[in-house]
Amino acid sequence: MLFIPKFEDIEAAMRLIGPHVHRTPVLTSKQLDAISGARLFFKCENFQKVGAFKFRGATNAVLNLTEAQRAAGVVTHSSGNHAAALAHAAVMRGVKAYIVMPSSAPEVKKRAVEGYGAEITFCEPTLAAREAAAAGVIDRTGATMIHPYDNFYIIAGQGTAAMELLEEVPGPDAVLAPVGGGGLLSGSAITTRHMAPAAKIYGAEPLLADDAARSLRTGTIQPALPPRTIADGLLTSLCERTFSVIRNNVDDILTVTEEQIAEAMALMWTRMKIVVEPSSAVPLAAVLANRELFSGKKVEIIVSGGNADLQKLPFGQKV
Amino acid sequence: MLFIPKFEDIEAAMRLIGPHVHRTPVLTSKQLDAISGARLFFKCENFQKVGAFKFRGATNAVLNLTEAQRAAGVVTHSSGNHAAALAHAAVMRGVKAYIVMPSSAPEVKKRAVEGYGAEITFCEPTLAAREAAAAGVIDRTGATMIHPYDNFYIIAGQGTAAMELLEEVPGPDAVLAPVGGGGLLSGSAITTRHMAPAAKIYGAEPLLADDAARSLRTGTIQPALPPRTIADGLLTSLCERTFSVIRNNVDDILTVTEEQIAEAMALMWTRMKIVVEPSSAVPLAAVLANRELFSGKKVEIIVSGGNADLQKLPFGQKV
Repeated sequence: MLFIPKFEDIEAAMRLIGPHVHRTPVLTSKQLDAISGARLFFKCENFQKVGAFKFRGATNAVLNLTEAQRAAGVVTHSSGNHAAALAHAAVMRGVKAYIVMPSSAPEVKKRAVEGYGAEITFCEPTLAAREAAAAGVIDRTGATMIHPYDNFYIIAGQGTAAMELLEEVPGPDAVLAPVGGGGLLSGSAITTRHMAPAAKIYGAEPLLADDAARSLRTGTIQPALPPRTIADGLLTSLCERTFSVIRNNVDDILTVTEEQIAEAMALMWTRMKIVVEPSSAVPLAAVLANRELFSGKKVEIIVSGGNADLQKLPFGQKV
Repeated sequence: MLFIPKFEDIEAAMRLIGPHVHRTPVLTSKQLDAISGARLFFKCENFQKVGAFKFRGATNAVLNLTEAQRAAGVVTHSSGNHAAALAHAAVMRGVKAYIVMPSSAPEVKKRAVEGYGAEITFCEPTLAAREAAAAGVIDRTGATMIHPYDNFYIIAGQGTAAMELLEEVPGPDAVLAPVGGGGLLSGSAITTRHMAPAAKIYGAEPLLADDAARSLRTGTIQPALPPRTIADGLLTSLCERTFSVIRNNVDDILTVTEEQIAEAMALMWTRMKIVVEPSSAVPLAAVLANRELFSGKKVEIIVSGGNADLQKLPFGQKV
């Protein structure tokens, strides 16, 4: 039996994490409305703590630990935003955080996780090595594994971004979120089905990592593809828990090319003046690539994060 | 006799332009506070219409035209933010805008000014050619010249950003603004002297364009240097009007290297998740380079604009 959050669980998460997360702004842009032909509202989780929505789920997971679990600490394996989010959420609540990272992870990410006060265990850059290293930490410490998306409290926490968005801007025709492992999309879908039942719900995904779109089409979870997209937050595959929510609630998953992602990202940087990571530009790219779905509509987008690597931008060159 | 705005003129500008400009947010960053050792408040004019504070002054200038002037239109020569700001401010109020631009200006800036509905006159990329072309427009149309900073209403309009900032966050120990021609710094200084008389007021300038600092030191206006800094909004020299305000109100002008500007810009992009142009990072660079002045202090910074050219960034490389 899969435990899947209901709307009430997302409300509970909101009450619990509310004092600890930023209520991020919802931004609009007349220029992007003109370019898209839609009325766009952007829930800007790039301004969230640690620069990504992941801090919501991580905080909810940490605040739902039992006393015994708190004492033993938490562990995850990730080199991305979830690692930083869990590190920060745990350490700020006095809980020890163990993060397993591939030794090949960018220096800046290692320093960020260290800076939040987590203990890093390095391993080879394979999933098997990560899982083995995490299992070693658990054997040694009794820490609780907090999976980045295959976790009841993580999904419930991620759903609070859509809750704030729909409270502030009710009545959308469509809500979009990027989809990697599906934690954000699942949480957003549960919230949206309850608060805006008439809205269409879309996931947005790079064509080079379209496992979620193919999972929805085939009815079985498709594995992740080799990491080739610039949207490096969207490389993971769905799990049964997120797939179950998505197939029951999401209208479609829209795929976009790398060029469309880079163009949408540049539009958000130059017109909205906000720094977003490539994954965050995927929903806007999907809106621009599917005018027949969104023209004239009230469209709400979850902007997932702002941790773009300035050394690896899909445009420009160093002067 | 130089007509120089008093605080009452900035209040009048605020009343007049208030309905037409964005009241931009004041952002803070715990990470930048930790890095700087100061309490920093950023007035984010990168979110202003046309992406820069220049829209404030331009709107004030247009709204103070006489009926006869409105009928004949306005003209300026610029390839920067003032051109776009004047074009947008004029055309949205039903006033014809003539913009003289060097034919060498970036395509994106030409398209922006055209997009606002202005009539562009191209000329050779020299100051003499620009002035001749503008004179030609005036002869032909009777349009009113709106100088980017040597103008009473422009300075008064630019002073409204500091007014909103000091209303929202009163009692700073220091206020900083970048200085090019001195319109923003003059307006900010007049406002700050009135609303926060105890605050220190600093201009911030690239070392490669330190004409304002040398003007203050020598007591006479120094000409602009050849355009070598990445802070391309700060290339112009002071005029008698702005110099007079600055020498009477500004405590010092701090200069920073290109490396310091690029580092401060990267910090604002990666920690605050906002897109700012290089000129806007100059005050933060000055704070970081002068810890003895700002440590432990409440420091308020005018972020001048967000029109960074993604093709010419001082960091990273295309992937």
